[in-house]
Amino acid sequence: MTENKKVKVAVCGASGYTGRELLLRLLRHPGAEVTGLAHGPSSEDCSMPDLFPEFKNLCELPVLGVDALVEKRPDAVFLALPHGAAAPIAKELLAKGLKVIDFSADYRLKDPAVYEKWYKVEHCDRDNLKKAVYGLCEWYREDIKKASLVAVPGCYVTSALIPLIPLLRDKVISPDDIIIDSKSGISGAGKKLTPQVHYCESAESFKAYGMFKHRHTPEIDQELSFAAGSDVSVTFTPHLLPIIRGILSTIYVRLRPGKSKEDLKASWEKAYKNEFFMRLRPEGTSVEIRHIVNTNFCDMSFTASGDRVIITSALDNLVKGASGAALQNFNIMFGFPEQYGLI
Amino acid sequence: MTENKKVKVAVCGASGYTGRELLLRLLRHPGAEVTGLAHGPSSEDCSMPDLFPEFKNLCELPVLGVDALVEKRPDAVFLALPHGAAAPIAKELLAKGLKVIDFSADYRLKDPAVYEKWYKVEHCDRDNLKKAVYGLCEWYREDIKKASLVAVPGCYVTSALIPLIPLLRDKVISPDDIIIDSKSGISGAGKKLTPQVHYCESAESFKAYGMFKHRHTPEIDQELSFAAGSDVSVTFTPHLLPIIRGILSTIYVRLRPGKSKEDLKASWEKAYKNEFFMRLRPEGTSVEIRHIVNTNFCDMSFTASGDRVIITSALDNLVKGASGAALQNFNIMFGFPEQYGLI
Amino acid sequence: MTENKKVKVAVCGASGYTGRELLLRLLRHPGAEVTGLAHGPSSEDCSMPDLFPEFKNLCELPVLGVDALVEKRPDAVFLALPHGAAAPIAKELLAKGLKVIDFSADYRLKDPAVYEKWYKVEHCDRDNLKKAVYGLCEWYREDIKKASLVAVPGCYVTSALIPLIPLLRDKVISPDDIIIDSKSGISGAGKKLTPQVHYCESAESFKAYGMFKHRHTPEIDQELSFAAGSDVSVTFTPHLLPIIRGILSTIYVRLRPGKSKEDLKASWEKAYKNEFFMRLRPEGTSVEIRHIVNTNFCDMSFTASGDRVIITSALDNLVKGASGAALQNFNIMFGFPEQYGLI
Amino acid sequence: MTENKKVKVAVCGASGYTGRELLLRLLRHPGAEVTGLAHGPSSEDCSMPDLFPEFKNLCELPVLGVDALVEKRPDAVFLALPHGAAAPIAKELLAKGLKVIDFSADYRLKDPAVYEKWYKVEHCDRDNLKKAVYGLCEWYREDIKKASLVAVPGCYVTSALIPLIPLLRDKVISPDDIIIDSKSGISGAGKKLTPQVHYCESAESFKAYGMFKHRHTPEIDQELSFAAGSDVSVTFTPHLLPIIRGILSTIYVRLRPGKSKEDLKASWEKAYKNEFFMRLRPEGTSVEIRHIVNTNFCDMSFTASGDRVIITSALDNLVKGASGAALQNFNIMFGFPEQYGLI
Repeated sequence: MTENKKVKVAVCGASGYTGRELLLRLLRHPGAEVTGLAHGPSSEDCSMPDLFPEFKNLCELPVLGVDALVEKRPDAVFLALPHGAAAPIAKELLAKGLKVIDFSADYRLKDPAVYEKWYKVEHCDRDNLKKAVYGLCEWYREDIKKASLVAVPGCYVTSALIPLIPLLRDKVISPDDIIIDSKSGISGAGKKLTPQVHYCESAESFKAYGMFKHRHTPEIDQELSFAAGSDVSVTFTPHLLPIIRGILSTIYVRLRPGKSKEDLKASWEKAYKNEFFMRLRPEGTSVEIRHIVNTNFCDMSFTASGDRVIITSALDNLVKGASGAALQNFNIMFGFPEQYGLI
Repeated sequence: MTENKKVKVAVCGASGYTGRELLLRLLRHPGAEVTGLAHGPSSEDCSMPDLFPEFKNLCELPVLGVDALVEKRPDAVFLALPHGAAAPIAKELLAKGLKVIDFSADYRLKDPAVYEKWYKVEHCDRDNLKKAVYGLCEWYREDIKKASLVAVPGCYVTSALIPLIPLLRDKVISPDDIIIDSKSGISGAGKKLTPQVHYCESAESFKAYGMFKHRHTPEIDQELSFAAGSDVSVTFTPHLLPIIRGILSTIYVRLRPGKSKEDLKASWEKAYKNEFFMRLRPEGTSVEIRHIVNTNFCDMSFTASGDRVIITSALDNLVKGASGAALQNFNIMFGFPEQYGLI
Repeated sequence: MTENKKVKVAVCGASGYTGRELLLRLLRHPGAEVTGLAHGPSSEDCSMPDLFPEFKNLCELPVLGVDALVEKRPDAVFLALPHGAAAPIAKELLAKGLKVIDFSADYRLKDPAVYEKWYKVEHCDRDNLKKAVYGLCEWYREDIKKASLVAVPGCYVTSALIPLIPLLRDKVISPDDIIIDSKSGISGAGKKLTPQVHYCESAESFKAYGMFKHRHTPEIDQELSFAAGSDVSVTFTPHLLPIIRGILSTIYVRLRPGKSKEDLKASWEKAYKNEFFMRLRPEGTSVEIRHIVNTNFCDMSFTASGDRVIITSALDNLVKGASGAALQNFNIMFGFPEQYGLI
Repeated sequence: MTENKKVKVAVCGASGYTGRELLLRLLRHPGAEVTGLAHGPSSEDCSMPDLFPEFKNLCELPVLGVDALVEKRPDAVFLALPHGAAAPIAKELLAKGLKVIDFSADYRLKDPAVYEKWYKVEHCDRDNLKKAVYGLCEWYREDIKKASLVAVPGCYVTSALIPLIPLLRDKVISPDDIIIDSKSGISGAGKKLTPQVHYCESAESFKAYGMFKHRHTPEIDQELSFAAGSDVSVTFTPHLLPIIRGILSTIYVRLRPGKSKEDLKASWEKAYKNEFFMRLRPEGTSVEIRHIVNTNFCDMSFTASGDRVIITSALDNLVKGASGAALQNFNIMFGFPEQYGLI
């Protein structure tokens, strides 16, 4: 692919941790060219090294308002903005014929009433919501190829869906009483300064938060219900790990009567044996965050005793949980090998 | 209490992390005098600052063989030795009429067959095992007062028992299907050099381990079965947190039919409202490791939704999970206020 | 000492990290009774567990305005307030006949012009400044005994003064060209939320700051000049370590012509061999932060090659660098053993 | 460059941290193909994911003995072995006509007597030592182009040489009394299990080590002496930072009489303004490890006051301090753009 045929991409919301990670990977992508960077509605013009000094010499593009970005006629725009802020901009970009890959929750939940209940804002773009594709690449690849709007799944959500979708589709595990005990690095809380992200409050500590209230819960339930063909309602508990990045979820499920751990293994292998970014780890071991940090891999393993199964899954919240998944979606949309920019 | 009436104590196994923590607290104890320190059977004579330079000026006692320690005629001996190494020495000390507070698993499991199955060693002191008191101070205080041998509970175990014992005794929660997802700091793995304790392998990482196999499982089951009055068999998953010390357990239980979260709260309050080291945190919040590090407190809280309850509990694995509990037992055995040395 | 003879103390500025550390130690002090806690001028009334949940059951006193605190008639007040905020309150308390131990920089610099140049605020209490004693216990003990106002030295400052004062007084090292390369844990930056204290910006990172500009520089120069009997002007570079607490200073000096490393050792031994909190570590080794964390010790060691000497010193910035030093001063002022509350 | 024209490379010593980092970058390199991996002389055959599970799906090559690797006829071999172990293998590979890029100290010091004094082993390949090129890319690029054997500089060494070489060549600073206070992450100590790498001994701590004795000292002196045209002998103090990777050096120098900070700035700009991997940071600020972690950049900045100058420099010890520098050398040797594999 010659230089002048590169796909032109823009990033809106380059000032956050996911914008940073996305840009680092786009710079390695042999088929994409970053033509514009934009900030959110309330920020000021600057340059990438102003926001992140590590981009000096690497990418010194200006970070401007969204309008300036559209003028550059990108083929695709990545929106790394908070929920609520993304939809109005996505709507405008889609109207101009651009492809949009959205990191926020604005297009993830199919039912706008569920969105409005959990996110406490009105949904301003119900038309596009209907057309949005849920960007879980390993399960919606064919839809993503044709999509003009992709909603990148939530980070915790992906760590739960990847191991559970095949097991529910293949009726290996019971859809009742699924417990997802997840632990995330602090970058999951974003750059915003809150007491809990102070080094002296988070280092050498650990806590749960958002019990029964975390906004990723309805998203997990939606996708697991699709997989199970019946209503699924999980118990999900997020925790804050004293590390910069990475998520590990410990998931408690039960085999259905008549099902064995061999069925579980077969279900995973059928789903993932040809998926580059999915790695099945040996039975009886735990996955580890250090094996997936800075990568787009999702590792998973299980241990069974009777009908009780403990699953562990791990991914990097900023990569497979956000920017890497976004880039993988982009690669599918534009016909690139899925690993481009992700190795 | 005048100086010459101080209780004479010795510590055997001063070279490990729990020995270190115990000694720091004994030095603050107004009624105890450390008269001897001993190492394990295979180590060499040295002094406390040789093992831990931080004891310079604080405690420069020699660390000798067990025999030398007995010659000093202590009133009580703390045994901070590995399982298997503790029982032979405890047996000898008890035969000499000394009181023994044992940190190991050797006297925790009432049934020696269970001990031998999980620990893969023969139990060499079944006689004393029958007399040993399980040192969970808040529940066995009266027995501890009269005990000559106390088995200090395991660290993970205490984090599970403290919130669950009252709820099972009071029949507030179902004894079936209790899931204990525990996370411990790295000091729990001891000073031994293994790849997993290398800074570069553990910092910025996280993993589960020992699924269905951790030796604290039968100990949890034993004590919860006593509390419930029926066989309890929990699902327990330990994890390794990238912090030096502290345990947080996230525990998933169900209210029994007809029971409400008010019953749960009442059960905890009845059990712990007069217990100095037990702290009930507000409903709907999580406990945090930073609040209990370096203390003998055990914090707990719960969040309920329908009959599903998520409990979090936290304690310092080296204090309430080992040395602090040992000292609290000592205080009970010798009639001191329980906080002595522990504030 | 019976309960009703305890010295009554109050702490003003209990909401910061140094206030927290001070209170933890006061609770262990057998001769002091905390009768009141106060917040800074712009904060609201609350209780200690509101500020620090770890104080539940330990100390649940209200935290009120300064006026309420004075009504309780304390014998001494610890002021853990920012510079500029401390002097007006100290002035008022001194006028009422209370003894004041001030953590801020307001009474450290003898020359108010130097204070005003470096701190950019006018000094509002020059009268008391003249009477203030510099609270470096090991060197001003006799003055502290009689003082009604003590200025607790800066944390970095203490790590520099302790090893250097004897060497300059005894003319062992050259007063020229002293380089102090200091590294401090993040609690040194306080609880204030700034980008640099965000876990994701500070963990796994390291940087220098304030080159030639840090406000501890004139304080180091003042005290070293007193010791040398001539003007000393050091090069001081602070750095931010990704740890919660602790300072290590690496100090580069030169032996004077005719002086040897034996003279250096003799100078240190003469100064510190009877000082409980001063620990000389073996020549040729480095001190380590882990040996002094949570203690009031200051460790020091040196390595020499020709006339070039590399000194390392370490202390806990929140203890010997602030609250522990304050309590040691208090013990001296009120005739208690210096270790009270500090072991 | 088409696939069948890729340069064939092999890595010997793939089991260490630098081997791991090198391989990750080689997998991204568009012009290189990894044809073989070898372990050190005393290890056993295995596969890359056996050593580092993170390579599953990425690189599953076997890791064999050196002989097996030579059979594959690579164009170049990277030797990531300890000093002493590298030279015998390099000698053999060079005799077979292969190009060798050596990570060890075996070919860095021009004078074998100096090598033998500091490393306490006899040098077994003095012939090739004479031909070896010191792989500091920014200063020896022309020699590297023609080299068959490159010695990759030490990690601390590079952090010192990069800022100092131009200033000594241009006679901006005095060659006397240069102090280099360096701080390195724990990966610098390698994978070997020693007490100091235990998480509980290194996290939340900090220390200096090897004062006047670190083996990088003669290497710094050699290269600075070349630059100055006269003998230079620095004072170098390494420290152990509680982070996985990264080095920051704080360097104390003096401007020569008549020289100003503008001369310093001009010297750096002349040397580095066209060097992609060299980044001059604003005067008066400090460089930060987080800006260079995982990259091949070396950042530097200075602050001056009178003739005293404080320089900070930072690089990733595993990248620009080892594997990245090795790959940059490879790119120069084989005519690739220097950034290949390094972005």
